[in-house]
Amino acid sequence: MTDTLDLEFPEPRPARGGAAVGSADQALDAVEAWFRAQSKMEERFGRIFRQAIDEVLDGQRTARFDINADGLVTKTERTYLGTKVEIICQDEFHLDRGKKMDYSVAGHDVDAKFSMHSLLGQAIPREAVGNICLLMHASDKESRFSVGLVRVTPDILNASSNQDGKKTISALGRSRVRWLVREGRLPENQLLHLSPIVRGAIFDRALSKQERVNQLFRKVQNRIIHRRTVTTVAQQHDGPKRVRDARSALAAEGIIILGYRDGHPEIARALELAVPRQGEWISTRVVRRPPGDTRPAALLQDGYYVRAREDEVPQPVSARYGAGE
Amino acid sequence: MTDTLDLEFPEPRPARGGAAVGSADQALDAVEAWFRAQSKMEERFGRIFRQAIDEVLDGQRTARFDINADGLVTKTERTYLGTKVEIICQDEFHLDRGKKMDYSVAGHDVDAKFSMHSLLGQAIPREAVGNICLLMHASDKESRFSVGLVRVTPDILNASSNQDGKKTISALGRSRVRWLVREGRLPENQLLHLSPIVRGAIFDRALSKQERVNQLFRKVQNRIIHRRTVTTVAQQHDGPKRVRDARSALAAEGIIILGYRDGHPEIARALELAVPRQGEWISTRVVRRPPGDTRPAALLQDGYYVRAREDEVPQPVSARYGAGE
Repeated sequence: MTDTLDLEFPEPRPARGGAAVGSADQALDAVEAWFRAQSKMEERFGRIFRQAIDEVLDGQRTARFDINADGLVTKTERTYLGTKVEIICQDEFHLDRGKKMDYSVAGHDVDAKFSMHSLLGQAIPREAVGNICLLMHASDKESRFSVGLVRVTPDILNASSNQDGKKTISALGRSRVRWLVREGRLPENQLLHLSPIVRGAIFDRALSKQERVNQLFRKVQNRIIHRRTVTTVAQQHDGPKRVRDARSALAAEGIIILGYRDGHPEIARALELAVPRQGEWISTRVVRRPPGDTRPAALLQDGYYVRAREDEVPQPVSARYGAGE
Repeated sequence: MTDTLDLEFPEPRPARGGAAVGSADQALDAVEAWFRAQSKMEERFGRIFRQAIDEVLDGQRTARFDINADGLVTKTERTYLGTKVEIICQDEFHLDRGKKMDYSVAGHDVDAKFSMHSLLGQAIPREAVGNICLLMHASDKESRFSVGLVRVTPDILNASSNQDGKKTISALGRSRVRWLVREGRLPENQLLHLSPIVRGAIFDRALSKQERVNQLFRKVQNRIIHRRTVTTVAQQHDGPKRVRDARSALAAEGIIILGYRDGHPEIARALELAVPRQGEWISTRVVRRPPGDTRPAALLQDGYYVRAREDEVPQPVSARYGAGE
């Protein structure tokens, strides 16, 4: 890694008539190339934002799932989210601290700027002008995120500033952004995207935490449930334990909960469900395969079962299904 | 739990001549009694502050250990620390949210106020006046914390306010505080209290993360090392793995690292060392017991060993010591 100061590079010339300075900015080229060379870059950025939002929500302690929920998530926490993103990003890509800015990337100082509102929603402080910015934006509601690089020159800033003297990037600036990820897919915040009715049934205050986990797997069937979802619903770290207990509780209703081992993936495949990986589960209601039935069937403890239609009467199943149990 | 509004209680009368209103405040009495009835209250508050500071430092990702380090820990993070304390406290004591304030304790709204500077360092917003405040203060440098309860009445506030209209509690207010914990012992931040020379030897930038963990156990002997210390030095979650590897590396220098199982506690006891519990280790340098030596001795793989004096030449030991290995 070279140890070159940004200052050794020529000051970027103000663009005339909106022409991009583009490849005349060798430092920006180098930073862009560095990020593009990182394996699974897009996936890793997605995980960074998911992790940062989840850590600030702290669902395990607070049962919160909506970073935009006024009254539940404070302004201090939303401000801190940007800091958490910067920390996790630095750690994920093993970045050194910059001389003056957040990071040193390929020997160049890079300032990290996260905004929940939009990629160009950041207020740029005066001292960042002239520097390379890593612009980051994630929307949990839309399950989307974007990442871009831009050299913040005075000509791409809007004229007006806020009371701290910070300015936002103009429409011209947007055309200068070099996108690393444009509208990438943020790992989903499952609770945020459940219908309010289902969510209300899960977070019913009359229920114990175990009953809430039972409700989760009862109400959200046939799709992968992530560990982080269970953690927030259970409000405790040991999600897997709660899931095992839910398995026993729901067996009486004919609902099975499949995990990533004990032959469960084979059952999921046989029933043509998504196959859980570690830290994931999927639940579905089953009934004994009626004679002559052509639905995909899986062998459980005591015979072949198929996914139940809504009109089929619930039948209890043995809570022991799958190979290893 | 009663569902009584604070408003149903009479407004606390302004005290005359500094006389405490004391037991005339039944709501405050009830809140105080509730906290005092919690088992291990002091220990739990200590853990809350330790956990909150450690989470904000995020040593595993940042290798930071000093919440007061300017330039490394931002103002945003220090502000957020108060939020994290409130969240962890709510979770630890299973508190409900208050109607208007942070918590509902014994049916009464309680506002949580954390300050890194002092117990009465908090700026009290106008809307908190009249309410019960849980005042919390922790000093990582002094390994001390205090917790108190006070009804914030206008007469205990200083006359002057900051630009947000917030006021601090006066000297009179201090006499009104009902202390739940006064100068309690905060679980130690070990890295913060190492000498700068030792710390510099551990965090030497030329060292790999494994070598840093080796240095930790080489330089900090004969005292318990906590998992959180290893996590920050190793900058990774799997501290135990790093410790196992350090054990092999340091055996060549005659340094043993004892954990909480595999017969290690027995070795620690035999050598008259503190005995590690889960998530703790202790290292010490040993030599074969010389004939006629009277130091406390422990049986390792191939004979009796004693703790080495500084002037004794290092002797390698087998990295396999203790029962289970």
